[in-house]
Amino acid sequence: MSREAMSAMDVIRTKRDGLRLTGEQIDWVVGAYTRGVVADEQMAALAMAILLNGMDTTETARWTRAMIDSGQRLRLDVDRPTVDKHSTGGVGDKITLPLAPLVATCGAAVPQLSGRGLGHTGGTLDKLESIPGWRARLSLDEIRAQLAEVGAVVCAPTDDLAPADRKLYALRDVTGTVESVPLIASSIMSKKIAEGADALVLDVKVGSGAFMKTREDATRLAEALVGIGAEHGLAVTALLTDMSTPLGRAVGNAVEVEEAVDVLRGGGPADVVELTVTLAEEMLALAGLPAADPAAVLASGAAYETWCRMIRAQGGDPQAPLPRAGHTQVVPAADDGVLAQLDAYAVGVAAWRLGAGRARKEDPVQHAAGVLCLAKPGERVTAGQPLLELRTDAPDTVPAALAALDGAIEIADAAPPSGPLVLDTLRSH
Amino acid sequence: MSREAMSAMDVIRTKRDGLRLTGEQIDWVVGAYTRGVVADEQMAALAMAILLNGMDTTETARWTRAMIDSGQRLRLDVDRPTVDKHSTGGVGDKITLPLAPLVATCGAAVPQLSGRGLGHTGGTLDKLESIPGWRARLSLDEIRAQLAEVGAVVCAPTDDLAPADRKLYALRDVTGTVESVPLIASSIMSKKIAEGADALVLDVKVGSGAFMKTREDATRLAEALVGIGAEHGLAVTALLTDMSTPLGRAVGNAVEVEEAVDVLRGGGPADVVELTVTLAEEMLALAGLPAADPAAVLASGAAYETWCRMIRAQGGDPQAPLPRAGHTQVVPAADDGVLAQLDAYAVGVAAWRLGAGRARKEDPVQHAAGVLCLAKPGERVTAGQPLLELRTDAPDTVPAALAALDGAIEIADAAPPSGPLVLDTLRSH
Repeated sequence: MSREAMSAMDVIRTKRDGLRLTGEQIDWVVGAYTRGVVADEQMAALAMAILLNGMDTTETARWTRAMIDSGQRLRLDVDRPTVDKHSTGGVGDKITLPLAPLVATCGAAVPQLSGRGLGHTGGTLDKLESIPGWRARLSLDEIRAQLAEVGAVVCAPTDDLAPADRKLYALRDVTGTVESVPLIASSIMSKKIAEGADALVLDVKVGSGAFMKTREDATRLAEALVGIGAEHGLAVTALLTDMSTPLGRAVGNAVEVEEAVDVLRGGGPADVVELTVTLAEEMLALAGLPAADPAAVLASGAAYETWCRMIRAQGGDPQAPLPRAGHTQVVPAADDGVLAQLDAYAVGVAAWRLGAGRARKEDPVQHAAGVLCLAKPGERVTAGQPLLELRTDAPDTVPAALAALDGAIEIADAAPPSGPLVLDTLRSH
Repeated sequence: MSREAMSAMDVIRTKRDGLRLTGEQIDWVVGAYTRGVVADEQMAALAMAILLNGMDTTETARWTRAMIDSGQRLRLDVDRPTVDKHSTGGVGDKITLPLAPLVATCGAAVPQLSGRGLGHTGGTLDKLESIPGWRARLSLDEIRAQLAEVGAVVCAPTDDLAPADRKLYALRDVTGTVESVPLIASSIMSKKIAEGADALVLDVKVGSGAFMKTREDATRLAEALVGIGAEHGLAVTALLTDMSTPLGRAVGNAVEVEEAVDVLRGGGPADVVELTVTLAEEMLALAGLPAADPAAVLASGAAYETWCRMIRAQGGDPQAPLPRAGHTQVVPAADDGVLAQLDAYAVGVAAWRLGAGRARKEDPVQHAAGVLCLAKPGERVTAGQPLLELRTDAPDTVPAALAALDGAIEIADAAPPSGPLVLDTLRSH
């Protein structure tokens, strides 16, 4: 056994036996894995031991730092305060699209490095790529220039941003080791801290359409995220927000861009507007701009001008027509009454099966595919009224999408009490 | 994600979440891993989940069957009852060498497929390879012929014997997942059941020189082994035997062959004779030959004749001089008194460092290297009297061997009470 392999064994055995990893062990194993010295099978065994035996706050903060140090921290060199937002992922969650230009319009700089969708939750880059000409990959110089000129950039992470996280995430994805709070939290925070923003607002989703199904699990994740922020001296605010039903009316890619543009022009669904403004207020407070009034700025249409400049700066044409699906199918209401429930997970899976999402990382997405929620929970409906509109370029996917929706819609005599969108707020400061 | 990868994820998640694996899951994952469809990193995650969350008797028996079915069961086609012995490994454990020819001389056939040493415990094949000309690899036809003519064969497993176990063991060895009782037990029993013997006697070692350091751990392993035997309809007897001090006086390769020959000629250390005869009695009872008297056969020298024929059948010269080490160094007694303790693990590590064992599977061993225990616990010693003789062809290894022996030798005023060699007996029948 080589000396390095023996060290990998020491680290694995330590966590397997329920002990704390030392800082040196964490630094070594994350670095050696990134360099290919620790083998995939060794890291997979360690990830399973971490999932089952846990890591405490100190270990998780050190693991995060080691992942940051596997690459380069961005130096944004921008003269405005920088603040970013991260969502743990939901169905119809297009908030980044109106939020980044809104917060930039209010005076902060928003360096939003984003991801692609996998499974039933969509990815911000996939959505924006439905805009003709728009490109996700920018160089660090392009990011800096756009932040200085426009104030907002939404793009793919640069290759040298936390490469350990990229490699480890791909491994966890095929080894049943995604569902570890310390590993989820360090994955999110390593990228966000390496990105170099001064402050961060987290939108931790709770409910059927979220990764965390229960309030307890979401709180644990939010605490881990805020704890890492505190250990790294980053101001973090985490909101727990409801994801039991889709956010807004559009779920997909182009359809979500259209809804985001409606919001930026002062319209759009009330829940999308509420969450956009709430997150903007938190971001602006962290950025030292508490006097800004994002609700007024959004209503004025000023943020839409920033949106157009942001899209154009990345090669996109904000006025170009977006792709339309070749096939639509309506799901009607079965009864008269009040729409009592529209399950977020079911709608997310339906949109995914229609082609809006990808099953494998290397798959393309259909930009026009998705689901429109023509009614929202709490609204009165009559039998036969269209509730959902399924859109796809592949009509053969419709039966599977309809099957996903089985049991997802409940119509009752009276509206159930509607809960708040924002369930809780945690702060590192 | 491919359909097969999704099944791997299902199996991993089931065990990760503390549930029982179904028979279908076990059959699929063991077979698909052997075929390379389940990746090393996926099996490593599953092995860690099994180590931490366990497998019950039914799961372990099914896992064993799946490993057997990954290859071919040997059909020995011998007209005598077949019985085999397996030891979990100890320091100075050369019992197979006198035992196989002894039991054959008493009328049973002994198809003893054996392993090589790794770490501080030696391997039977390494020991026998110190005999000039002797070869470990035989074809199935050669094994059958030798069993019919000599009654005993000690050789390497054939390639198609439980290939899943070979692949899984190599993976566990580098991923910190060796120490799982269900995986250890299924590894041992899959090879032994596939080997096709009618009955099996297990020597489960307990103590510092053994894999299982405590009576409780050894009992758990013995119960798992016997349980698998019962589920597969194989008659199994497991003895728990002491491994707190080396067995016999010789630890190494050629030196252990010499001691085994002493025993076969009616001499040798009392503990080696005692354990050889006890195991032979258990094997002969299982083979339906309870009237045989192995103690008398051993004392008569008849088993030595079988030994010579067994060695010659595999190309070895039983009369040829064995390799002698170029360098020896004596460790003297520090005081007058009684040798109260001679730690098995320390002596095993010293022999290993002198060159008798291997650090990596692909390393060669030094046939002449090893340690001679010139005094045994309970014997009177005087200051300056040689206690140990270290032998090696690489004198630069001596300081590390001496360091391993630090604290291993205790000399007291009076002899402590000596415990029994056989601590317990478990039977599947």
